[in-house]
Amino acid sequence: MNKTLTVPGFKAAAVKAGIRGKDRLDVALIYSETPAAAAGVFTTSKVKAAPVLLDMEYLRDGRAQAIIVNSGIANACTGQAGMELARGTARLAAGQLGIAGELVLVASTGVIGQQLDLAIFENCMAPLAGSLRQDGFADVARAMMTTDTVPKTARRVVELAGKKITLLGLAKGSGMIMPNMATMLSFIVTDAAVQHEVLQEMLRQSVAHSFNAVTVDGDTSTNDTVLLLANGQAGNAAIERLDSADAACFRQALDELCLDLALQIVKDGEGATKLITVQVKGAASVAEADQAARTVANSSLVKTAFFGEDANWGRIIAALGRAGIDFDPDLVDISFDEVLMVRDGLGLGAEQEKLATRILKQQAFAVVIDLKAGPAEATVYTCDLSVDYIRINADYRS
Amino acid sequence: MNKTLTVPGFKAAAVKAGIRGKDRLDVALIYSETPAAAAGVFTTSKVKAAPVLLDMEYLRDGRAQAIIVNSGIANACTGQAGMELARGTARLAAGQLGIAGELVLVASTGVIGQQLDLAIFENCMAPLAGSLRQDGFADVARAMMTTDTVPKTARRVVELAGKKITLLGLAKGSGMIMPNMATMLSFIVTDAAVQHEVLQEMLRQSVAHSFNAVTVDGDTSTNDTVLLLANGQAGNAAIERLDSADAACFRQALDELCLDLALQIVKDGEGATKLITVQVKGAASVAEADQAARTVANSSLVKTAFFGEDANWGRIIAALGRAGIDFDPDLVDISFDEVLMVRDGLGLGAEQEKLATRILKQQAFAVVIDLKAGPAEATVYTCDLSVDYIRINADYRS
Repeated sequence: MNKTLTVPGFKAAAVKAGIRGKDRLDVALIYSETPAAAAGVFTTSKVKAAPVLLDMEYLRDGRAQAIIVNSGIANACTGQAGMELARGTARLAAGQLGIAGELVLVASTGVIGQQLDLAIFENCMAPLAGSLRQDGFADVARAMMTTDTVPKTARRVVELAGKKITLLGLAKGSGMIMPNMATMLSFIVTDAAVQHEVLQEMLRQSVAHSFNAVTVDGDTSTNDTVLLLANGQAGNAAIERLDSADAACFRQALDELCLDLALQIVKDGEGATKLITVQVKGAASVAEADQAARTVANSSLVKTAFFGEDANWGRIIAALGRAGIDFDPDLVDISFDEVLMVRDGLGLGAEQEKLATRILKQQAFAVVIDLKAGPAEATVYTCDLSVDYIRINADYRS
Repeated sequence: MNKTLTVPGFKAAAVKAGIRGKDRLDVALIYSETPAAAAGVFTTSKVKAAPVLLDMEYLRDGRAQAIIVNSGIANACTGQAGMELARGTARLAAGQLGIAGELVLVASTGVIGQQLDLAIFENCMAPLAGSLRQDGFADVARAMMTTDTVPKTARRVVELAGKKITLLGLAKGSGMIMPNMATMLSFIVTDAAVQHEVLQEMLRQSVAHSFNAVTVDGDTSTNDTVLLLANGQAGNAAIERLDSADAACFRQALDELCLDLALQIVKDGEGATKLITVQVKGAASVAEADQAARTVANSSLVKTAFFGEDANWGRIIAALGRAGIDFDPDLVDISFDEVLMVRDGLGLGAEQEKLATRILKQQAFAVVIDLKAGPAEATVYTCDLSVDYIRINADYRS
């Protein structure tokens, strides 16, 4: 498996730097042999961790050549000292790699409010850079993990005008998004040649329908980060327009890759036992469809009912009622997969409920809601809320 | 205790009508010997149950004389048949009491999407009306319960210009607000004489700072209802202006009564082990203070940390970050009771955390957040999120 986790021109490595005890990979490095076009999408929180602020600054020119990531401490709510630490980390990596500091992006995930010690990075940077290798990405995926139970990787290969293009993605995150220790991070590398502004817009759109369409508990992290590096080593004619055929092909692969990683995060949601797709159709606008789907997907009552395999459509319609969207409750249809439970706001009775309960016993199913209030739709992915979610999050730091 | 649960001119009773099995009080009646000024505050959900819609219609003239309530079935998402059932129930009670149907308000709590049978009310109405008595309110409080573990009552006595005025309140609700079976209902009766528009405005304001300031899981019911009947039998000079001294005195008692009942609901929150006050100061506006307090109070991660007695201020600041409000993260202060944990966005270290952890071991404490972004503040009450919340809600209907 590790053998397939390679992309021409990229190397990676991870080390045990001691942030998370002695026996865990906790600092990792991704490196491109040549400067790459770079794009990033970050948390929308008002409270942005130092590495997020630094990456936003370094990405202004759309170029990067390395990513250094640590788990254990988030470097969030750390003030000026935290900014200097992030900048110092980039500088150390750059020095070791012989490149400019502004070409190194930084990401952290872990406890909020604690300071990292730059000595940690001083000590590990030489062994880390020294162990860079083509098939090091599996180690990076493990070094990023916090409450994740499995490392998350995905890969797509497409052909653009006869050139083979590889996309490789890593992700971490399980509470979506647990601000304490389970930030959502994803790093994607590709050997495609893509103009950096086009790359940024493609990433923004892919993230909207993948990482930003999954929710475990409605919380959003201070550190959420998706980075994409494209080093052009595939030798394709650079993608310079969003509306080209090559762009469409690359975007499809990127969309698939991001959704693949995002769904891996939901499935690994803290305590999750089921993957639930909430699709809202017939909304007055996409914003309202999204709002409705998120309100249902984040309702603790809806999510506990799914954990209990209870075809409790009353909780779904009640969530819609408080979603702040425009619709007529007497027109709503609700299905679980293909089983219609509610037609025009009225339940269809015990027989349908029995069929729906069978759907809920599956590990994955869709809740399809038709508001009949307009042409817009949106899809959100979530998991159920289980007894284990509470156990994990109540005991987390103790 | 039951002896004190009386108000001059009011009677009450409850019966076992068979909606919730044979051995549970499930239909109750409150009756004023004379028509009373009446006020109501209802769910803001787009999906309003039939009794809510009926009460909104009947309250247009600001008068009522009776309230009939049932538990077990919510009569929500029941379409035209549900409206007819609610109207028929009011008519049956009115017939038995010898008053106009429009003077009877109706409330229901229970499973959404099931139809009630009018025969239930036909069968129980005569025994119910026949057993009305002054000290029947304790039975009503029990008949309203669903997942509540204790009946909730409160009483205040004040003097207005030498006249003794009594306020008596009943409430039910434990998941706040569990749309399936734990709607928040409250009925308040008083012998004060109050002009009905003044009564309505006083109730609206009291509810804003009590029932609408508590949250267990952020869900809102289709059936939430607060009703207030004032029959004037105390003989006070009627309160006809909001800014009179008598109004101020009455409002204070009403505010206290409503907050008392609301906090009983939080303390009885499903699986709750702690009562938590979230106070946000220094916000740019009251709306933003309220939004910030609610986002913190409803965060599953914050609530599980409280259950785990973990002084995890990172989760609080992360919730503030995604609350959609205007503030500078580098200015925020956070205290647990009198223990300052975060000053100007930075944690104050292990010693303060140890003190704060001691606060979290209490059954009740306050989280005080100063945004330093303006003059406004707001307070919200909530409980922790425990393993038992999931158990109760996952298993509820099975």
